[in-house]
Amino acid sequence: MSSTFGTLFRVSTFGESHCPGVGAVVDGCPPNLALDAADIQRQLDRRRPGQSAMTTDRQEGDRVAILSGVENGRTLGTPIALLVPNRDQRPGDYAEMAQVPRPSHADYTYQMKYGIRAASGGGRSSARETIGRVAAGAIAEKILAERYGLEVVAWVSAVGEVSTEAVDMAAITRQAVDATPVRCPPTAAPAMAAAIQAARDAQDSLGGVVTCVCRNVPVGLGEPVFDKLEALLAHAMLSIPATKGFEIGSGFAGTRLRGSAHNDPFVQKGDRLGTLTNRSGGIQGGISNGEPIYFRVAFKPPATIGAAQATADFAGRAVTLAAKGRHDPCVVPRAVPIVEAMAALVLVDVVLRQAARCAGSLHP
Amino acid sequence: MSSTFGTLFRVSTFGESHCPGVGAVVDGCPPNLALDAADIQRQLDRRRPGQSAMTTDRQEGDRVAILSGVENGRTLGTPIALLVPNRDQRPGDYAEMAQVPRPSHADYTYQMKYGIRAASGGGRSSARETIGRVAAGAIAEKILAERYGLEVVAWVSAVGEVSTEAVDMAAITRQAVDATPVRCPPTAAPAMAAAIQAARDAQDSLGGVVTCVCRNVPVGLGEPVFDKLEALLAHAMLSIPATKGFEIGSGFAGTRLRGSAHNDPFVQKGDRLGTLTNRSGGIQGGISNGEPIYFRVAFKPPATIGAAQATADFAGRAVTLAAKGRHDPCVVPRAVPIVEAMAALVLVDVVLRQAARCAGSLHP
Amino acid sequence: MSSTFGTLFRVSTFGESHCPGVGAVVDGCPPNLALDAADIQRQLDRRRPGQSAMTTDRQEGDRVAILSGVENGRTLGTPIALLVPNRDQRPGDYAEMAQVPRPSHADYTYQMKYGIRAASGGGRSSARETIGRVAAGAIAEKILAERYGLEVVAWVSAVGEVSTEAVDMAAITRQAVDATPVRCPPTAAPAMAAAIQAARDAQDSLGGVVTCVCRNVPVGLGEPVFDKLEALLAHAMLSIPATKGFEIGSGFAGTRLRGSAHNDPFVQKGDRLGTLTNRSGGIQGGISNGEPIYFRVAFKPPATIGAAQATADFAGRAVTLAAKGRHDPCVVPRAVPIVEAMAALVLVDVVLRQAARCAGSLHP
Amino acid sequence: MSSTFGTLFRVSTFGESHCPGVGAVVDGCPPNLALDAADIQRQLDRRRPGQSAMTTDRQEGDRVAILSGVENGRTLGTPIALLVPNRDQRPGDYAEMAQVPRPSHADYTYQMKYGIRAASGGGRSSARETIGRVAAGAIAEKILAERYGLEVVAWVSAVGEVSTEAVDMAAITRQAVDATPVRCPPTAAPAMAAAIQAARDAQDSLGGVVTCVCRNVPVGLGEPVFDKLEALLAHAMLSIPATKGFEIGSGFAGTRLRGSAHNDPFVQKGDRLGTLTNRSGGIQGGISNGEPIYFRVAFKPPATIGAAQATADFAGRAVTLAAKGRHDPCVVPRAVPIVEAMAALVLVDVVLRQAARCAGSLHP
Repeated sequence: MSSTFGTLFRVSTFGESHCPGVGAVVDGCPPNLALDAADIQRQLDRRRPGQSAMTTDRQEGDRVAILSGVENGRTLGTPIALLVPNRDQRPGDYAEMAQVPRPSHADYTYQMKYGIRAASGGGRSSARETIGRVAAGAIAEKILAERYGLEVVAWVSAVGEVSTEAVDMAAITRQAVDATPVRCPPTAAPAMAAAIQAARDAQDSLGGVVTCVCRNVPVGLGEPVFDKLEALLAHAMLSIPATKGFEIGSGFAGTRLRGSAHNDPFVQKGDRLGTLTNRSGGIQGGISNGEPIYFRVAFKPPATIGAAQATADFAGRAVTLAAKGRHDPCVVPRAVPIVEAMAALVLVDVVLRQAARCAGSLHP
Repeated sequence: MSSTFGTLFRVSTFGESHCPGVGAVVDGCPPNLALDAADIQRQLDRRRPGQSAMTTDRQEGDRVAILSGVENGRTLGTPIALLVPNRDQRPGDYAEMAQVPRPSHADYTYQMKYGIRAASGGGRSSARETIGRVAAGAIAEKILAERYGLEVVAWVSAVGEVSTEAVDMAAITRQAVDATPVRCPPTAAPAMAAAIQAARDAQDSLGGVVTCVCRNVPVGLGEPVFDKLEALLAHAMLSIPATKGFEIGSGFAGTRLRGSAHNDPFVQKGDRLGTLTNRSGGIQGGISNGEPIYFRVAFKPPATIGAAQATADFAGRAVTLAAKGRHDPCVVPRAVPIVEAMAALVLVDVVLRQAARCAGSLHP
Repeated sequence: MSSTFGTLFRVSTFGESHCPGVGAVVDGCPPNLALDAADIQRQLDRRRPGQSAMTTDRQEGDRVAILSGVENGRTLGTPIALLVPNRDQRPGDYAEMAQVPRPSHADYTYQMKYGIRAASGGGRSSARETIGRVAAGAIAEKILAERYGLEVVAWVSAVGEVSTEAVDMAAITRQAVDATPVRCPPTAAPAMAAAIQAARDAQDSLGGVVTCVCRNVPVGLGEPVFDKLEALLAHAMLSIPATKGFEIGSGFAGTRLRGSAHNDPFVQKGDRLGTLTNRSGGIQGGISNGEPIYFRVAFKPPATIGAAQATADFAGRAVTLAAKGRHDPCVVPRAVPIVEAMAALVLVDVVLRQAARCAGSLHP
Repeated sequence: MSSTFGTLFRVSTFGESHCPGVGAVVDGCPPNLALDAADIQRQLDRRRPGQSAMTTDRQEGDRVAILSGVENGRTLGTPIALLVPNRDQRPGDYAEMAQVPRPSHADYTYQMKYGIRAASGGGRSSARETIGRVAAGAIAEKILAERYGLEVVAWVSAVGEVSTEAVDMAAITRQAVDATPVRCPPTAAPAMAAAIQAARDAQDSLGGVVTCVCRNVPVGLGEPVFDKLEALLAHAMLSIPATKGFEIGSGFAGTRLRGSAHNDPFVQKGDRLGTLTNRSGGIQGGISNGEPIYFRVAFKPPATIGAAQATADFAGRAVTLAAKGRHDPCVVPRAVPIVEAMAALVLVDVVLRQAARCAGSLHP
């Protein structure tokens, strides 16, 4: 298991669905940052189930406690431990799944890899694992915003067959994103909501796409060769459960263009060079170029569905499986803060790595 | 700069276009593996320019020397240093580019990040940097093939607007891939070749897509949470110069399906569980499930083109740039062994990490 | 701050003296290990203050809770989060120290490095930081004992000017060590106890030496060049608060011998080669040779003392400082389980790293 | 094998005694540092054998070539590959040792760990492995000297039973150290030289101690908890072949003092706090305090001696071994630049890690 992410801003997450709690330890947070639990809770609230009829309907909140690393509302520069208790520690609905691995879920692979697995099935593949990421990401975002004016905004750009119109990446805000429960720009929202409801009615599920933009990114972030900024972002995004693809800038569509049409010409912008277009997605040669960074992340439809599926049990016998309990028909709206968190974790780490190269002073 | 890749099988590459040489140090190769330079040269030959009219026409070869870690044709378990001398150490054609950063190239970002850059422009963003990867990947492939029967095959599945028909992933071989200079299954090859020639005639360039399959992968590879197998593959692929996207299994297209249509039902296959379909791309919950792993990688059109481009110089003055010298109009055929190399580097590392978990014996 | 230790068995500790709690997250524990809180509590009890008149007299216990990674008494292979709540969260006695950095303590350096520090002074330099290490080390010891029969025993070999007689390293047990409150073989114990009492009476403190032996270590552990086994042990030991030195095998005394007198001749021992003497301390060329590993760790006298000291405050003004409250006059007896924990963390990690090299099977 | 050292300034060394060459790749060197081969050759010349009758008498030099990362005498911020060719690639004198593992050498443990070993015996345990360290260390020293005015000086403080008088740590220079072939302050030099000659005459060997001081170290370096500065130094020093011990500041002798006698009182020194004494060795709580850092490293007598030794061969049969060829009776004088190199590698890395915490600007 590799539950640690980052080089200088290091996040270690822990926790399964039905143990006492889930959380994270953040090591490498700069000292003297104003921080309290509310800063973190805000993004956790955006992540949790039950925010609307769109998602699952458990209303209870996940409350974060800061266990260490902060005193009198200021970070100490020491590890920040974050804990969110699990409320339901009895894995009741999972008895059948103990015999039958859910298709396209992690039940089978966890069992084969570890020779044991949590009663709830896929262990750390549970969506609750992402709580630690979102909590840690909220700290990263605060550093980026306060010290560098850098901001990260993600939204749902597709649900199943329904896509959004073009979005103004320079202007879109979290407030605008949260204006609809599907977290997408208003025009497409009703069609997306209808698609999700239809899937729910059919005890089925739906995938989608999240798009993310990072604005005010300074030139020079990213560590070629192997830690190119887009490589770190791809790593971060594909580590989110249920993701199947990543595109930076022009992405797969860009492969169809000729170089003369794809290249981003330079122009003077204020006191620096900028580019006229941004098919590069804000990154050239693995290093940020000062333009907005934007990328898209593909989420498959959730594997656990109420509809009956023909499959096999662990012993190889043909069986029919229909998951009991309530299951989220579409995780994409809740994935928005997770994508933002992972983007922030990548960015804060490359900021610190670049800072190491540039520092004059050695005293904070 | 972060020129090291891997946790237990660690590759550190070095070298610019015009310094004495490029290469890699591989630390963590198991002892007692039969290895000689020819094992490595084979993939380097597939990577080098000038293999056909399709690519650039410099015919000289890049010859690898093994400097350490191998004695009497056997690895010692110690670091293996690999060196490929550069033949042309005079950065002649790059004088104009010293003043004008090439659009969508790394000239500008390297200069801004490091405050200095190699005479040839983007320094480590040069295609020659991938020589070290391919050399190291050849060692990784040998371990995978000899000890685990695992094989990796990649091919060109799209060039510009031209895509291949469906490919039989269970059967395709490197020999078949190399049957055409564009390294794609025969039916689409002529149209791809024509598209590349047209771009060359226009002093322009073309992007494309490489698809890769990994067969005979044992169940259980990959280290959730943050080092999920697809996350490591995405990281590896997006670290290759000129890549813009990554899809595993059903990818972006899979986001349009409902769960009932997307899930891969289990069936008994011989003495293990397999899946009837493989939209998961051989990975569930970040762990290989025993089915073939397949993924697609998007390559943008090369940034350096002979056609005139309106852009700005470092001082912000509007200029017209037309790159001198010969430039590869389409790198995708040559990217095939690079994709294979990076896939092999990821796989050998997760094999060793899983082995650490399972070992009975502690003696080789 | 770097609060993570290990490559494959990774421990991340957190917590200051007066925050809600201290603890650790262990990532990389093999699955299916029997584990409950009592396994961990045993070593925590040996570490905590107030075990005897020898140390401080606070009798309250530090109780560990396992927050994740264990289900039905078995490890899942997922991260194990461990938490010990702090009871006293009011840093009362530290008001004066806010103005005056304690001589030879970390108050000054923490303030200068981070520009802020915990109210209690040295923040993570507090002895409570070692709770996470001891908890994680108890898990490491269990793996080593159950899967490899390997055992680690440490004892106090010197307190101030009082040293023990020679100890039978092949026979000494933890039970024997714990027979006296100073944790040293019986003959020297009364003199050590008297020395500690005299220092306490003088409101002063005393240093000492801990010796540690690791038995049943298989041949082949350790990762040259830079992660030689003795280098990892030295790193681990010098990371314990208040340590000033490390010796493996013959140590500094061995530098006075000629090679002919220092070399350990080989002899056949059962089915393997062993050595007649063991000045190497069980390690040759950075790799364990199958003989017992033994080493010594120097602990300075605790910096915080009740006796008056002439020093300067943060503003550089000459002041007299006499620490209020109860302070441990000699930490060496309590350091015994910490040394054992760090030794176990090193050993379990090199076991896993060597296992990665040797594995046949990839399934647990 | 773990041949990489450092977090942000990362050194990967390679090479055995009889392969084409030995060397290192340095990743993380800041850009725009003036650097040429002569900067590196200087320390290599101090390391090589044959500098005097004191050591072995092979006069040939080891010449370093810079393969990458430097252009027009300036570092590019990219990996710097360094290569020193091996002159003698025929392991002639080692035939007998193929059957008989040298006592206290790494022949046996390498064979057991890897199941194979270099013809020359201990493979990477060869003294030639340290060439890569010294070459990389020379770059580290240059950064420290030019950007921070920091300097590192080591000397021989004991050879066998002969110790130096007290040395003025504030004043000692490399020039003074090199004034005698034993690299020790003049008064003790003749006795040390005589001791080494006597050991040589007896075909025997001698150990010794190297002391090292780091001056002008800024306050605030070191990364507690696990990467305390003294822990990193201990790790670095114990990774040098033949080392058996490490002491920082008062070391083992300090364990005999009471706290009141051991503590270093603060005093105002210019515009900062300093300490009146320096038993801490320049480090408190794992963080540099602005005073000189000093430490001692124990080197055992070399294992390979010409005198006859009763031992066993790999098959367990009793044999007599007398090493053929010329062997260095005392490596301590040549260890001086190696200790300096490892100290510099530790310091440059913690400087960069602290810089990451403090940076205002992100542009070099």
